[in-house]
Amino acid sequence: MQEKNRTEIATLGEFGLIKHLTEGFELKNESSKYGVGDDAAVLSYPADKQILVTTDLLMEGVHFDLTYVPLKHLGYKAAMVNLSDIYAMNGCPKQIIVSIALSKRFCVEDLEDFYDGLRLACEDHHVDIVGGDTSSSLTGLAISITCIGEVDKDKVVYRNGAKETDLICVSGDLGAAYMGLQLLEREKVVLKGEKDLQPDFSGKEYLLERQLKPEARGDIITKLAELNIVPTSMMDISDGLSSELLHICTQSKVGCRVYEEHIPIDYQTAVMAEEFNMNLTTCALNGGEDYELLFTVPIADHEKISEMEGVKLIGHITKASLGCALITRDGQEFELKAQGWNPLKEKGN
Amino acid sequence: MQEKNRTEIATLGEFGLIKHLTEGFELKNESSKYGVGDDAAVLSYPADKQILVTTDLLMEGVHFDLTYVPLKHLGYKAAMVNLSDIYAMNGCPKQIIVSIALSKRFCVEDLEDFYDGLRLACEDHHVDIVGGDTSSSLTGLAISITCIGEVDKDKVVYRNGAKETDLICVSGDLGAAYMGLQLLEREKVVLKGEKDLQPDFSGKEYLLERQLKPEARGDIITKLAELNIVPTSMMDISDGLSSELLHICTQSKVGCRVYEEHIPIDYQTAVMAEEFNMNLTTCALNGGEDYELLFTVPIADHEKISEMEGVKLIGHITKASLGCALITRDGQEFELKAQGWNPLKEKGN
Repeated sequence: MQEKNRTEIATLGEFGLIKHLTEGFELKNESSKYGVGDDAAVLSYPADKQILVTTDLLMEGVHFDLTYVPLKHLGYKAAMVNLSDIYAMNGCPKQIIVSIALSKRFCVEDLEDFYDGLRLACEDHHVDIVGGDTSSSLTGLAISITCIGEVDKDKVVYRNGAKETDLICVSGDLGAAYMGLQLLEREKVVLKGEKDLQPDFSGKEYLLERQLKPEARGDIITKLAELNIVPTSMMDISDGLSSELLHICTQSKVGCRVYEEHIPIDYQTAVMAEEFNMNLTTCALNGGEDYELLFTVPIADHEKISEMEGVKLIGHITKASLGCALITRDGQEFELKAQGWNPLKEKGN
Repeated sequence: MQEKNRTEIATLGEFGLIKHLTEGFELKNESSKYGVGDDAAVLSYPADKQILVTTDLLMEGVHFDLTYVPLKHLGYKAAMVNLSDIYAMNGCPKQIIVSIALSKRFCVEDLEDFYDGLRLACEDHHVDIVGGDTSSSLTGLAISITCIGEVDKDKVVYRNGAKETDLICVSGDLGAAYMGLQLLEREKVVLKGEKDLQPDFSGKEYLLERQLKPEARGDIITKLAELNIVPTSMMDISDGLSSELLHICTQSKVGCRVYEEHIPIDYQTAVMAEEFNMNLTTCALNGGEDYELLFTVPIADHEKISEMEGVKLIGHITKASLGCALITRDGQEFELKAQGWNPLKEKGN
């Protein structure tokens, strides 16, 4: 790895650091009135919009591993995860506020990398960074991001609106981010052991990209609006398809049938699952961090949805008494269980 | 200390835990449309209001010490610190969102205590808890709180509006929270050493309360509105009077004169400073965490402000070229310096 300059954070101080990192940030959205530099950000939304607010707290060693995640990617992903939550309400993200706590092993250049990633994600999605704050941590890095967005008053989509006979749809493909993580974890040993040895990721770029540089699906929200489709329920897939589907079904008081053969899976994910000797469907059902959108639409929208690029119909909603099940390729029914990643069951002391 | 029950967090899981903690929370504000349980909170503010958003990330060992801070107080204070930022913009806090990352040494009962404190602070200030999230941390506790509030469109008060001849005002009294911290730090040795030995805090209750249970000054904001006073600049005092005054002066491009004899100090603070052999004025100028309001008003408001209970006039704004200075009791001028608490200069690795 190339040696880079190291400027100690203490040389700038808290206020100098924030100024340095956020200098030249322009506020581009009409709703962003005042950004970094006061006790709070000032926003102004029109009366016909509802405001969406979401926040995420990411901890080093639990939510990310800096052994193989470059800080620029971490910044990008930390922003995307939050934008994705706003899209999942059928909204449009407009502002983020970023708080970071970091230990002494981090330098100014590290934070510059992190902010480069943040900025890139925000520029792609026309989001303003309206607040920042850094302080210290005794061990490791903690990142808190708050994202604010807007949605037309009658267009908010919750998790609890799915109705019997609704179609279940999912964007993109599933399981690749999880496979990317497995790949990185496997190569971590290599990355740690021999400094000059570069792991060979050729042919697996898509998996790495899905893990390291996920894309929040604002494009799907735009398309749905163009087609005049308002989903009856929606979530983003961060913990795995099974887990999210169960949330929708529980909150909507319905059941579901999902067809194994219709779950969208990329070729590279399949190859990798075989290499790792893992069950591909399990990976697609329970692998987290895809940040694709899972939503339901009334059966009347069947034609419109079938023609929509990048969206697959994977099943339908049933009455609650039928439970939530996966129909395998050979026609068997299995109860869906949430085996998604649960950060509360991870190691810790 | 009394032994309490210990329920492991894993027995509830992430979703069970949030449900358990937030069950029975009612949304009371008109602007709170949907709270805990979806990808984002949904808010709705009228068009004549601007929206204020602030966030804070608090790390164990840096921002709080659980040796002497009970979790209920921590919850209360974590909320107050954020409400204070909204008041400091002349706004009114309406919602908070809470994210917590915690290591395995914490149990469900700990979180209940923390939430009790949060809830108490929110009830006192008519604020709704509209989002919650818990995950794990490898070491210690991290708390991120986002607070959302409103303010009339023409009433936002920034840090950058102070003008020459404006009067400098401060609410309450200063230095007591810092003295409370010194006291707790001194007794920490006692608290650690002998289990049954209770430190004697009698006669020092006010100092402890200021440190452990600060109050955000919403009452001052209400009074200012009643008196039809819109400050020209405002901040809350979290890092110390000197540091905050310098922020206002730098951002407003002005100077200031502050009179030592007018700085409000409580009797207990003075007694304690003597006991610790500390300079009282230095404590009041540089001790942080008072969460009082520092603001400037046009000289035309002199009469109204002088009659306002709980507010003291401590100096005035000058042109920038005169710099920022403290006038001591014996008439000497000293340049004001920010020696406030800087979490980035703290220990860490």
